[in-house]
Amino acid sequence: MKVLLCGAFDAAEQAAWQTALQQAMPQAQWLDLPAAQAVPVDVVAAVVANPRRGSLQGLPALRLIQSLWAGVDRLLADTTLPVGVPIARMVDPAMNAAMTETALWAVLSLQRGFYAYARQQHAAQWLQHPQRRADALRVLILGQGQIGRAVAARLAQQGYAVSGWRRDGTPLPPLLAQADIVINLLPLTPQTRGLLDAAFFAALPRGASVVNLARGAHVDDDALLAALDHGHLQHAVLDVFHAEPLPPGHAFWQHPSVTVLPHVAAQTDPSSAAAVVAANLQALQDGGALQHLVDRQRAY
Amino acid sequence: MKVLLCGAFDAAEQAAWQTALQQAMPQAQWLDLPAAQAVPVDVVAAVVANPRRGSLQGLPALRLIQSLWAGVDRLLADTTLPVGVPIARMVDPAMNAAMTETALWAVLSLQRGFYAYARQQHAAQWLQHPQRRADALRVLILGQGQIGRAVAARLAQQGYAVSGWRRDGTPLPPLLAQADIVINLLPLTPQTRGLLDAAFFAALPRGASVVNLARGAHVDDDALLAALDHGHLQHAVLDVFHAEPLPPGHAFWQHPSVTVLPHVAAQTDPSSAAAVVAANLQALQDGGALQHLVDRQRAY
Repeated sequence: MKVLLCGAFDAAEQAAWQTALQQAMPQAQWLDLPAAQAVPVDVVAAVVANPRRGSLQGLPALRLIQSLWAGVDRLLADTTLPVGVPIARMVDPAMNAAMTETALWAVLSLQRGFYAYARQQHAAQWLQHPQRRADALRVLILGQGQIGRAVAARLAQQGYAVSGWRRDGTPLPPLLAQADIVINLLPLTPQTRGLLDAAFFAALPRGASVVNLARGAHVDDDALLAALDHGHLQHAVLDVFHAEPLPPGHAFWQHPSVTVLPHVAAQTDPSSAAAVVAANLQALQDGGALQHLVDRQRAY
Repeated sequence: MKVLLCGAFDAAEQAAWQTALQQAMPQAQWLDLPAAQAVPVDVVAAVVANPRRGSLQGLPALRLIQSLWAGVDRLLADTTLPVGVPIARMVDPAMNAAMTETALWAVLSLQRGFYAYARQQHAAQWLQHPQRRADALRVLILGQGQIGRAVAARLAQQGYAVSGWRRDGTPLPPLLAQADIVINLLPLTPQTRGLLDAAFFAALPRGASVVNLARGAHVDDDALLAALDHGHLQHAVLDVFHAEPLPPGHAFWQHPSVTVLPHVAAQTDPSSAAAVVAANLQALQDGGALQHLVDRQRAY
């Protein structure tokens, strides 16, 4: 079984993925796109991470495109993707764990005022704020896929008052009106692009905070900055941005009410992700059921 | 039953405590020390929070001193305390919950590099660091009282590799050598004062971090700063200090590897603490067993 590994990696990442994938599936023949001068026509699967546009053309035997990332919005934007070949997302328990850690850290920080205390430290200011209980904090999670459900379960276990929303479910504004913290874990699709706009922020109660761990394009940056500057929103924790790396002059960097993370909320772990890839490749070989398939129509 | 409320409170705190205590124990007659010109000789209990030295003298009927704080080191330092009167500490589930939240936030921040990312944000620097798994992080908890055990249980539940130490237990240096993060939750006693000194820090592996949520006097500040500056220690999270508020010129304020909190790791919550006080006052009245008594010899 010939498998193409095809990602926008630096050399160290490329080596880590190759080692992990070869260990997880030693019986496969792993091909590295830049190295392979001409891709053999009998490649049956492509394991991809932000592949260059057009990379997956001209592979007549291709029967699976397996993404190493959970989000496939960039992959699906490639109009040259072969039609009819199944696409699988990465759904990795280790990545879910990493995402729940980041969400929990952001919620703890907001609940207990730790971002405010960090600002005070810079000003050498000693000032205690009232302590809030976890069960008094209402957390709304946008997205009820594997990651959204894992985050909701973890936060509920810690005592927070958690609710969830999915796009095809209940109307959003009434839920927003009851939320102290909103955590965005939606897939980026034409329907969710720009969802966090001025109307969204206005529907939140005064003093609410926003945590975006999904995609930068979900957010209207100017509307978010306005809501923060007017004091309607208290704080934003942002891991993802319209352009990444976040450009040096962007207002988010130095904004006192914005926490910027460099897209690290949940990095894929090659060792655990390779096992997920291997399971799908094995299913492909054995004629078993492929897991975590993307619905191209829904776009996730 | 006459009860004296006697603490170094500001007006708002005083009002919050009086309301909470009167609601929890309406049948008691609550006296406020500054207001009561002459303290009646039939006061049977004193509910205290850093009372002025000598405040508890001349109370012949006194049968219980109930602290509103968990730490009684300052209370016990008052050599005028009436001999033979039982002293009870505050042991409040809501305070344990607050302490576990702060400990979990510090551990998550250290595990996932969030303090480093905050420094990077100030420099508008986009740089991703390798992601560490919770189960690869060894957390050592000093102190195995109510708070230490609650923190250990919560961190173990999140997947961390947790171990604990108590002063009369196993030797400390071998445990330090195996710790990525040390969390200090010891009582301050003559035996634990200054425990976190140069030898303590040297016994930790290079790159370890220290979280002090107990008392400032546990730590040799100069030794800690030297260990951080030499790069032997990675980071320190400090909630407590030799002098509080931390003086404006102190090196901790602006140190890039120190997180300063203004003694907010676990604020006592009047509503839940009042119930704990009421239970002990009721036991005193009914001749029941008093809870959470301090051993003056052990000093906690």
